[in-house]
Formats: sequence, structure tokens, C-alpha cells
Amino acid sequence: MNNLHNLINAIAPIHQEVALQANDHLNQLTKPQGSLGKLEDIARQVAGITGEVMPTFEQKAVIVMAGDHGVCEEGISAFPAAVTPQMVLNFLYGGAAVNVLARHAGADVVCVDMGVNADLEHPNLVSRKVRKGTRNMAKEAALTLEETTQAIVAGSEIVDDLVAKGYRLFATGEMGIGNTTASAAILCALTGLDPALAVGRGTGIDDATWLHKQSVVNTALAVNGLLGREAGVTEASASASASAGARESASASAGASASASASASAGSSGDYALEVLSKVGGLEIAGLVGVILGAAKHRCPVVVDGFISSTAALVASRLAPLSASYMLASHLSQEQGHRKVLESTGLAAMLQMDMRLGEGTGAVLVFNLIDAAGKIMKEMATFESAGVSRE
Amino acid sequence: MNNLHNLINAIAPIHQEVALQANDHLNQLTKPQGSLGKLEDIARQVAGITGEVMPTFEQKAVIVMAGDHGVCEEGISAFPAAVTPQMVLNFLYGGAAVNVLARHAGADVVCVDMGVNADLEHPNLVSRKVRKGTRNMAKEAALTLEETTQAIVAGSEIVDDLVAKGYRLFATGEMGIGNTTASAAILCALTGLDPALAVGRGTGIDDATWLHKQSVVNTALAVNGLLGREAGVTEASASASASAGARESASASAGASASASASASAGSSGDYALEVLSKVGGLEIAGLVGVILGAAKHRCPVVVDGFISSTAALVASRLAPLSASYMLASHLSQEQGHRKVLESTGLAAMLQMDMRLGEGTGAVLVFNLIDAAGKIMKEMATFESAGVSRE
Repeated sequence: MNNLHNLINAIAPIHQEVALQANDHLNQLTKPQGSLGKLEDIARQVAGITGEVMPTFEQKAVIVMAGDHGVCEEGISAFPAAVTPQMVLNFLYGGAAVNVLARHAGADVVCVDMGVNADLEHPNLVSRKVRKGTRNMAKEAALTLEETTQAIVAGSEIVDDLVAKGYRLFATGEMGIGNTTASAAILCALTGLDPALAVGRGTGIDDATWLHKQSVVNTALAVNGLLGREAGVTEASASASASAGARESASASAGASASASASASAGSSGDYALEVLSKVGGLEIAGLVGVILGAAKHRCPVVVDGFISSTAALVASRLAPLSASYMLASHLSQEQGHRKVLESTGLAAMLQMDMRLGEGTGAVLVFNLIDAAGKIMKEMATFESAGVSRE
Repeated sequence: MNNLHNLINAIAPIHQEVALQANDHLNQLTKPQGSLGKLEDIARQVAGITGEVMPTFEQKAVIVMAGDHGVCEEGISAFPAAVTPQMVLNFLYGGAAVNVLARHAGADVVCVDMGVNADLEHPNLVSRKVRKGTRNMAKEAALTLEETTQAIVAGSEIVDDLVAKGYRLFATGEMGIGNTTASAAILCALTGLDPALAVGRGTGIDDATWLHKQSVVNTALAVNGLLGREAGVTEASASASASAGARESASASAGASASASASASAGSSGDYALEVLSKVGGLEIAGLVGVILGAAKHRCPVVVDGFISSTAALVASRLAPLSASYMLASHLSQEQGHRKVLESTGLAAMLQMDMRLGEGTGAVLVFNLIDAAGKIMKEMATFESAGVSRE
């Protein structure tokens, strides 16, 4: 727990003054002010994050974390749990969609075993296995607090290692049969959303399995004492006004200023998020929370993929409100809870591709847009240099 | 008019059987069926368009057409009309946003003077000037039918030339102070939409100018006898059932089959679209109609940019219903009429970047997604090759 506390405390606000310098430059370029929309948002945000007006990201990585889910024994997925280790090997051999799209983006795939229910060995596999899959959350807590904290810290240490090797831009990805069920449960517990609105089709289940999946989420919330708790949390965090206020301002926009007290843990709201993550979460989801916090600690932008990754981002923003300023959303997936998670985290998707694969496939597509925003900053003519009239 | 008729007649349905072969391949890849969403749609569509299951697009071009608008004398833009030729020079010197983003996408910018109100010379400028700007549509028809047809055919001939040089993938772009006003008028005339819902902020006008712009569009529609006509067209095209039915099936999806009769002009609906384009359109918009029809004739995909380009796509789909199967939408812009134009043309945007610049900036960003879809087809492992279980 000490390590997690240190990690959260190491996250500082972004460099607001550098974001403003980037904005000044954008307003000199030959285009109506703001007309490049989210490309300009990216340019301002990565300037604020890195402290450089025009950063370049040479080395990029998508960190794909894998873990199994005990809740699969309830029959909530279209695919058997055996697919998790099979797909991990597919990532390692370079044949999965995320491998193809990462190569296309000039990024490396870092594949991490956080808790796959199989013995996996491969020279390129990063093994941080906490245990072989979670417990069945429909019957008991999926993880202990200690296991959860271990997984978060492991995720942040992977970022430590990659930063030491020169990586400065990250994306989140995941693989774990059953993890849309865990993510839906986290979303319901943190926001009070009804499972009927949070549970999606995952890899492609039929109506009967979809209804069953909703009831499994309900059971998991009840068994773990998480029903109706999100309201209690609101009351608790209202009294802890310093951290709650900082959370709101940090998640409202990358440009919001936040008080120094926000660099501390989010108090009761953070404690509750950690409890939820352990009771109905997953090891790959906890690992991704660590990746996001680690990226924020190192002042690196982190692109958040679809529903599961965004749920990790929501947890991270509850644990460390300042981390939200370091996140970029990628796509809006077909998983129905995704829009709600993004809203709750204060993120806006850039791609609407109707994707629902996970792995980081949506996030790596956004690397191209980040590169594009960087070139806009460096290569566009100014009104003065091009002799173009202003309004 | 004969040349336009020949151009329309040269457009054939896409190769549906090749799109199905692409679909069969997609279903062998290690992912839940359909989980890559619009990336899979792209793969199927470009297969159907080109007749190759896995086409590669080595040479890509964004065709940026420029023209001036007589209606600017009504004071409807935040920028002076002098900006049109200034920005054309900026395109030619490589300093505009579209130049930066085209280089990023590995594409060339082809800059065309369709009707700029200035004498422009540059070795890289393609000069197809029909006249120095349109007439003021608030007082008279912007163009004659002959000028409009000349501009469309010129646009298609530019594609002829580029295809002869090896280009096989195109994007549309434009520059013309005043052209969101013309596009809004076209949209209202073709769909019956109220100007209050079709007119947007363009490069960034205030509330008073926005209301004035709406009234100018209303005046232009009234002066040119286009008010309430879209209903008459619906009745007329209902009687011309062969072409109307074909239009619906062609615009419904790239996968729709269409009768051979659809390769002919869309009859009265097409005649009306041509009349609208001439009375309230613009030379760069007419040129883009020609680019789109030319791309369809040569079985090349054409990515449609924002509001103005999409209006040209709507006109093209009315002139030649089969052309819709060759179009890919790019982004949903901040210009409020854009969503309606896309719906009317049967296109779905992939990017939500809040952009409102034009030039082709949104369309060239989609080249990267087309390349990504191609690599998914060529590089992903199959369930069999990777030893992954199916559901």
C-alpha cells in the first residue's frame, strides 16, 4: 500500500503555462482559430504533459495486459477462457490485430501476463502474474486488496522500465475472456449505473446470455456489498472537499488548474475505488490502472483504448485525480457502457469506428493523430510567413 | 452536356463478389466477427471498388479545388474574399494544414484553380478556371448550366490525368471564402432543410452574421426559384421508379446491388441537382462533383472531407446514384449541416475531431485508416494459423 501511495503522490499537475504557449503558436497558423478541433486539443495537452511546446514521440508502446476471470464459470462469454492464453501467444507471435495496427503506427507491443490461468513462457512475454486468474466475483471478492495493489504497482513499474528505455508515449490494451463483465461491474459500483445499461455484448453474446450477464453483475455487486454504495461515496467525498474539488477540476479538462492537495490520494473516494477494483475487477484491469498512473508520474501521455481500458482510467482518476490530465481517449466502442465511462472520466473519443475488439486496437490508431498534431505545430505556415489576411 | 452524360454512364456497380471474398477472409482472422467495425467496412468496400481482395494504394492524392463566390458581397464570411487566392498560394508553397497532413499520410496535394477571382500562376497549380468567381446567388443564378457542366467535366478530367500517372486513391478538398453559404443553399434546395438548420458558423462568424447568412440563403433560394422544390422532386422521382429505386439501394450501403438502369443518369432528380448546383453552387463544388464521378468511373475510392465536400458528394449521388458506393466519409465536422448531408448521401463519418477547416484536412486523416484496413487484411493471423479456439 505504501508503494501505491508513493505512486499517487508522485503525480503532479501538467505544465499549464506550456500548454498556453502551444495555444499561442496554434493561433498564429494559417487557419481560423480552433478550426482543427481535437488536433489542437492534442497539441495543447501533450505540450502541457511533457513541458515541451512541440514534443516528438520517437518510441511508443502499447502495453497489452492479460488476465483471466473466475466469473467465466458463470457462462458469460461467447468464447472459452482458453482463448486468453491462446491470444497472448498470438500477440507474442505478432499475428493479432493490435500487432498489425501497432506496426502501422510505428509502435511496439509490450505483452504482459498479469494473471493468465496458464503457464506461459516466451522471451518477449513480460511476466508479472499475481495469480492464475481472479476468483469468481459472483461468489466472493475477485482479488484481495494486497493482490490488487501488487498488480497496480507492477503496471507502473513496467512504465518505469519502458521510460528508462526511451519510450515517451503509451497506449493501453488488454486481453481477458470475461473482462467486459468485470468492467461493467466496476462501472456500476463507481457510478450507480444500472447493469442493464452497463453490460454489453462483449465478443458477441446472444440476448439470453446478455440478460444472464446482467444478472451475474447484479449478483457480484450484491455478494460484495457494493449495491447503492456509489451514493454513500458521494456523501463521503463531499465532506472531503479538498480532494473532491480537485478531482472535478482535474477531470474537467487538461487545462484546469488543481490545488497541490490533489496530488495526494483522493481519500475516501480513492479507497472505495480500490475496494471496487479488488472485489469485482481483474488483474489486467488493475495492471492498466498502474500503467496509467505510471505514465502520469513520468509526464507521458497515455492513450486509453475501449471499454475495459476506460474503466481502468476511471479507477485511476478516482485514485489520483491529477492523472486524468495525462489521458487521451481514443475511440467510442460498440460496448454500450463505454460512453458512460468516458463521460465519468471526462474524456472525449476521437474515433467512431464501431470497434469492439479491445487489445489496444483503437488506442494505437490514435498515435497517428498525435503524430499529425505534432506536425501541424512544426510544419504549418503562420499568417505572417504566408502573407494571408486575418479576419 | 454530352460529356457529363458519358461520364455518368461510365460508372458501373462495384464488384460485389469481391467484397464478399474480402468478407470471407475477415471472418477467418483472430478476432470476433465484425469486431473491427468500420475498418472491416473499409476493407470490404475497397475490395468491391477495385475488384482486388487486398488492394494496395501506393499513390494517393487530395484534390483541393478553389473558387470564389459572388455572394461574399453580402457580407457572410469572417474572412475577406482575398483570402481565397492567398490560401491557394499557401497550398502551393506547402504551408497549409492540408499540406502538412497530406505529407503525413504519404499523399500528394493537387491544387486546382476552378474559379478564383485573381490571376494565379505557379508551376504546380492546375488551372481549370471557368470564370473569376460565381455571380452573387442572392441576386441571380451563380452559374449557367454550361459553366457548371464544364466545371464538373474538368474535375473528372483531373482524375483521368492522375489515374494515368498511377494514383488510385483520392480525397476531396476545397478552399473558397463563402462556400459554406453556397453549400448550405444546396443542402436546403436538395433536402428541404430549413436554412436555420443548414447554415453554420463557417470560419467563425458571430450571431448577427449567422442570422444574416441564413437570410441570404433564404433570399438565394427564393431568387432562384428553389423554395419548396425538393418536394416536387420527390414526386417526380417517385414516378421515375427505376432510377429512384436504384439510388436508394446504391446509397444504402456499399454492399447493395443495383440494377443496370442505375448506371444511367438519375433522370429528373439528376436534372434538378444540376440546376441547384448551377444556381446556388460554386465552381470548386462543381469541380469536386466531377472528381467524385471521375473516381467512381475509374473504380477508385474517394474520401469525402467536410461540409462542402459532402455537399458535392450529395450532388454526385443525385446525378449518378451508383457513385455513392465509391465514396468514403471521413469526419463529422462542427458545421451544423454536415450531419444532415452525410445522412442524405448514406455516409457514416469515422472521425469526430470537431474540425471545421475544410481543405481536405479531415479526408487525408482517413488515408491512414484505409492503409490500416489493408494491413489487417494482409498481416493478421487466422484462427487456424494461430491455433486460437473459435466460440
